Amino acid sequence: MSERVADYLAGQKGAILERLLALIRFPSVSTDPAFAEGMRGARDLLLDRLRGMGLTEVRLLEPPAGIPGGQPAIFGAWSGAGPEKPTIMIYGHYDVQPADPLELWHSPPFEPAIREGRIHARGASDVKGSTTIAFETVAGFLAVEGGCPVNVKLFLEGEEEIGSPSLPALIEAHRDLLAADAMLSADGGGAAGPQPALNIGCRGICALQFSLRTAAKDAHSGKVGGAMRNALHEMARLIASLHDDEGRVLVEGFEDGVPPLSNAQRAEAASLPLDETAWYAEFGASPFGDPAYTVRERTTLRPTVEVNGMWGGYTGEGGKTVTPAEAHAKLTMRLVPGQDPAAAQAAVRAHLERHAPKGVTLAFSYRPGGTRAFTLAADHPLRAAAAAVLRREKGGEPAVTRLGGTVPITTLFQEKLGIDSLMFGLASPDEDAHAPNEFFRLSSLEEGLRLWPMILTELGKLRAADFRRS
Amino acid sequence: MSERVADYLAGQKGAILERLLALIRFPSVSTDPAFAEGMRGARDLLLDRLRGMGLTEVRLLEPPAGIPGGQPAIFGAWSGAGPEKPTIMIYGHYDVQPADPLELWHSPPFEPAIREGRIHARGASDVKGSTTIAFETVAGFLAVEGGCPVNVKLFLEGEEEIGSPSLPALIEAHRDLLAADAMLSADGGGAAGPQPALNIGCRGICALQFSLRTAAKDAHSGKVGGAMRNALHEMARLIASLHDDEGRVLVEGFEDGVPPLSNAQRAEAASLPLDETAWYAEFGASPFGDPAYTVRERTTLRPTVEVNGMWGGYTGEGGKTVTPAEAHAKLTMRLVPGQDPAAAQAAVRAHLERHAPKGVTLAFSYRPGGTRAFTLAADHPLRAAAAAVLRREKGGEPAVTRLGGTVPITTLFQEKLGIDSLMFGLASPDEDAHAPNEFFRLSSLEEGLRLWPMILTELGKLRAADFRRS
Repeated sequence: MSERVADYLAGQKGAILERLLALIRFPSVSTDPAFAEGMRGARDLLLDRLRGMGLTEVRLLEPPAGIPGGQPAIFGAWSGAGPEKPTIMIYGHYDVQPADPLELWHSPPFEPAIREGRIHARGASDVKGSTTIAFETVAGFLAVEGGCPVNVKLFLEGEEEIGSPSLPALIEAHRDLLAADAMLSADGGGAAGPQPALNIGCRGICALQFSLRTAAKDAHSGKVGGAMRNALHEMARLIASLHDDEGRVLVEGFEDGVPPLSNAQRAEAASLPLDETAWYAEFGASPFGDPAYTVRERTTLRPTVEVNGMWGGYTGEGGKTVTPAEAHAKLTMRLVPGQDPAAAQAAVRAHLERHAPKGVTLAFSYRPGGTRAFTLAADHPLRAAAAAVLRREKGGEPAVTRLGGTVPITTLFQEKLGIDSLMFGLASPDEDAHAPNEFFRLSSLEEGLRLWPMILTELGKLRAADFRRS
Repeated sequence: MSERVADYLAGQKGAILERLLALIRFPSVSTDPAFAEGMRGARDLLLDRLRGMGLTEVRLLEPPAGIPGGQPAIFGAWSGAGPEKPTIMIYGHYDVQPADPLELWHSPPFEPAIREGRIHARGASDVKGSTTIAFETVAGFLAVEGGCPVNVKLFLEGEEEIGSPSLPALIEAHRDLLAADAMLSADGGGAAGPQPALNIGCRGICALQFSLRTAAKDAHSGKVGGAMRNALHEMARLIASLHDDEGRVLVEGFEDGVPPLSNAQRAEAASLPLDETAWYAEFGASPFGDPAYTVRERTTLRPTVEVNGMWGGYTGEGGKTVTPAEAHAKLTMRLVPGQDPAAAQAAVRAHLERHAPKGVTLAFSYRPGGTRAFTLAADHPLRAAAAAVLRREKGGEPAVTRLGGTVPITTLFQEKLGIDSLMFGLASPDEDAHAPNEFFRLSSLEEGLRLWPMILTELGKLRAADFRRS
């Protein structure tokens, strides 16, 4: 069944590419109200396409009023597989990053140019290419077979590039409409290329910003130096207290709930080889980190406390003899399975408060909450299905890996809708997403139009009940 | 002799005030080329006055070509006291700070307004008021007595507010013209008020700026966090290594050459009482610093290493999940007698280099050299003369104190011309120098016109040879 659909899609390649290019031509930049017309154009095109391919309930899901930056999501369903079959939510997003700096583009960002087998345009890789693969696969099934192997709910977000401000409320408001057994994401993942990897998890995140104060006002360092606390010295001492010489986090209670790495986790981490020397060389950096773990483990299975910004005092040209009274720092914590974001944030805050001496006051701000780490269980049907597809298409066992970064939708869908996600996108990490001259490979488009029919077919071999485990 | 001159100056008070106000009306802002006309106007007025009072060799000393910001100094001499009498350099400056922010002034900064016994104007306190007292005193002696008790060399700088960029070269170029036995400065000092203090020294200073690098470029904290050095963590660790918990400097070799405080130094430091509780309360700060020393000692007789600015990573609104590759810090070191600025700077630099781990590179910049601490020796004739004057005018022994800040001219005149300085200005610390609504007290003008005739008379009791000690 999937071969017929794949053959059909291969035959439609030209038409699918034309539709993808049409979608890319709409400058759907979600962060900037000046691009409202581009957002609207992309939505209209997608609504038309979803209706045209035979989905039902095609509509916009409007964001709740009053959330700045809120953008409607696009919904469409097909439920002809029947209640015994699983319902798969397919996730993608139609918004893109801004194209600045424009002067670095070799061709205009919203006029897709095909050069050397690559579509150069903003949004080609992130993520209109993979999103198109996903819904054109559904269209292929409906056209060739008159139906899909699974029930489908297509959900295309319009706020991914601005941090999904209204997504949690939007999901809450449409819990019944969005009910599904599992989620397949066109965003993220590493299905493309000769060494495919199953991304089966990602780290979580929480954040903290604080200001440190040592006096009511800055003072002249000649007048007070030697008898007044300097906010920058105190900030340095506090930040230095967070880690040991090898970068291990020293925050009491931060790792509460984190079990030691299992042999299975370590084996999975080793399944996608990493040339550590080349990895450090790419960044122009020296080896660093807890020697008890490999680089892959340090960056995906170990939590971090990271200062992203720190500042205070005089930072202009020349010098100023000031004893600063105030300093500031922005921190994010990457979390691993077992950590609660609020508890991790509280542990770091408590550490800072405990280490601040008398005469130093701290004021915290910035983002309560956070996102838990996500893991797709080893025995989850999504995982077996994707592994089977990759094994068949590529030969050999696919590597299993985790992202060091955070994909909030995975946790959000799990927490709000109780469904697990697999990232099965076709973008490759070298395609300059978020940067000038972003591109998407035509070979990835072709590969995706083979892989997606296979995975929907694979999932269609299962029953809905297979996803409903205790 | 000084009484007759003081009486004369008291009678001339109205005319002297008018001349001071005329000088203040010239906006002689040295840092901004837009005020060149104001600088020229102030110079012309002063040249006229010095010639009019009977000084010889009245002229501009032009700054060496090619030094940005260079401004001519004004020179005038009177040598009628004869070679047996000491030659006293009188120092002042005719340039002023910018008046910004203009909107905070209650009356225009260059239209002096007298309210409640205070002249409100930019430059009134710093330092046209005290400078006028100094040269009008010389004028008084010439008018009443036909001569001064000492030979006089008046030197009025035009670059004090911009850090005297060409002063060292200008002094070098005019060593013979500027030869003198001692220097009396109208800038600095605390002769005014009910509790006068002899400022007999100041701390020196040197500076250091450095950038720290951990990688060739910033990286995504999700991708690398846990396995890549963070420049902000490393900066924090380096800065934290400079001091212990109580603020003692931990830099090896930094205090080389600094003898333990003598009983005489400690007694002098105690001679001007300091209410430490009130002092900390003024800054809204908690007590801090090496408990082996009083606050007065910590701020005047102990050296410091002070971070004036520190920054790196993302410092804008919201957050950015970056692992920064670069961080920056600006440091100044306050120096005490016995410390060599270059050696102190080198010690701090060596400490930072020694404490930077492998994989962290440091790049240093900013201001080589520096200024040594200055001390007027206990048996220096300037000190005895000033003490005698204050004793007579105020009753009781004047306090002896040191500035925690740095007055580079004291060291410069000592190093280049071999002469020691006493700061004998009439400005008070509450007069908002460098700030909006700067003012100078009319009572300080009157007091200065009594004290300066007395100190020149006192110095006139000495022979030039008294200043030429081994």
